[in-house]
Amino acid sequence: MSNKLTILKIGGSVITDKSGELSARTEIINRIANEIKKANINQLIIVHGGGSFGHPIAKKYGIKEGLKQEYQKVGFAETHHVMTVLNGLFMDALIWHNFPSVSVAPSSCIVTENGRINFFDQTIIGSLLKMGITPVLYGDAILDSTLGFTVISGDQIVSYLARNFGANKIVIGVDVDGLCDSDPKKTKNSKLYKHLTLKELEDKKHSIAASNSLDVTGGMLGKINELTSAIEQGITVLIINANEPNRVYKALTGSKVKGTLLEKE
Amino acid sequence: MSNKLTILKIGGSVITDKSGELSARTEIINRIANEIKKANINQLIIVHGGGSFGHPIAKKYGIKEGLKQEYQKVGFAETHHVMTVLNGLFMDALIWHNFPSVSVAPSSCIVTENGRINFFDQTIIGSLLKMGITPVLYGDAILDSTLGFTVISGDQIVSYLARNFGANKIVIGVDVDGLCDSDPKKTKNSKLYKHLTLKELEDKKHSIAASNSLDVTGGMLGKINELTSAIEQGITVLIINANEPNRVYKALTGSKVKGTLLEKE
Repeated sequence: MSNKLTILKIGGSVITDKSGELSARTEIINRIANEIKKANINQLIIVHGGGSFGHPIAKKYGIKEGLKQEYQKVGFAETHHVMTVLNGLFMDALIWHNFPSVSVAPSSCIVTENGRINFFDQTIIGSLLKMGITPVLYGDAILDSTLGFTVISGDQIVSYLARNFGANKIVIGVDVDGLCDSDPKKTKNSKLYKHLTLKELEDKKHSIAASNSLDVTGGMLGKINELTSAIEQGITVLIINANEPNRVYKALTGSKVKGTLLEKE
Repeated sequence: MSNKLTILKIGGSVITDKSGELSARTEIINRIANEIKKANINQLIIVHGGGSFGHPIAKKYGIKEGLKQEYQKVGFAETHHVMTVLNGLFMDALIWHNFPSVSVAPSSCIVTENGRINFFDQTIIGSLLKMGITPVLYGDAILDSTLGFTVISGDQIVSYLARNFGANKIVIGVDVDGLCDSDPKKTKNSKLYKHLTLKELEDKKHSIAASNSLDVTGGMLGKINELTSAIEQGITVLIINANEPNRVYKALTGSKVKGTLLEKE
């Protein structure tokens, strides 16, 4: 596959209101779709999070911990279903902007083992990329060969696809400016790290504030842990604030943008 | 897999208003979901059609004939997208009735060659069935190794899955009472065939009226052609009117019901 592949992750905290339930920020989704269309990247995979759609229901039914009781089966069904609803809103915006993109349902092609991907047929994603059509995936409730079912984070999918397709860049859109020395939502003078190598990242892990909005998939530290294996492989990761207009566009097109750049060395 | 597997197909003409565009019959979807829940079948696969969601857009962009021009890519994206919207309404109803069911997106796991399935990873469908969770599929816009992309009918998926999983029964819910000697929508005194063997079916093919609402996937004769290979394998096919209350329920539970039963001999 082309070494120009970019993977864009849009966090659930950006496109949904996490203080609510099933509360989508359609105006922000629409603006981001517009920036994606404007950036006009041919080789692109998009992955989005679950926010106030997937997380509350996954938590309520204990989906991440696996199948233990019969009543959870409907919860599993419901978790996937609400994710398809959120994904539908995202796809609506992309297609309305005439951006050729097709959703690929993680639960239709991924099986995990103890929460980690161990089966992922990527034939269809590869074919879509060859045709210049952008596959869109999302954090999802999926089958697990040991647990019965579980929850997979969008971040695990991002890291896996980046490594497998040899992406050269991952853009992570969150609701803060990047990685800071303290929680930017709680501390006024928190300092943004503009550039960190893997070694610096490891040293600073204790001081990097976990995202304000911890969810079933682990917040900011969960993201970092998932992405480390991709960075080790030489893929650069750029964390930006997708709530701020034009940052997604700038990050996709390689323009100078406020954020944190993570590199191997 | 269990020999008690039933596959239920619900036609697009039942759950949508084919005279409109993107016009779902949510009350009928809800009633059918209720009948499915009441029937309480553990080993069940559901497949639904596209009706006024998939067909008009697929036709507008010539999706079935494959990728010829750039502008069709957005049409391909849009066709799949509207199918996920219709599927979402169906899933909403099933989950609201506490029926454990998960949608499996055909475009995420099937690739055709010249319109016929040549790659279909059924791992996830098999696992869902083992857990007693009903997979729900639908006619879809999917990738094709020779055409680029195409449209797959729900009927082709039904027949393929029935043969592969060794189903013992296929129930086809349409908007007429079954197969008749003339088009029941145009002729008042058309006679319903209650039982046909494959040989009788072949003899009567010329007199069996094609469904009133011909669509990109071929109407009633298209259905028959798809299902013949399943019937040859000893799977019975029962065609019923899903617009009439309780017929889906009766067909699923094996009660006496008005319709056409197709059997090998």
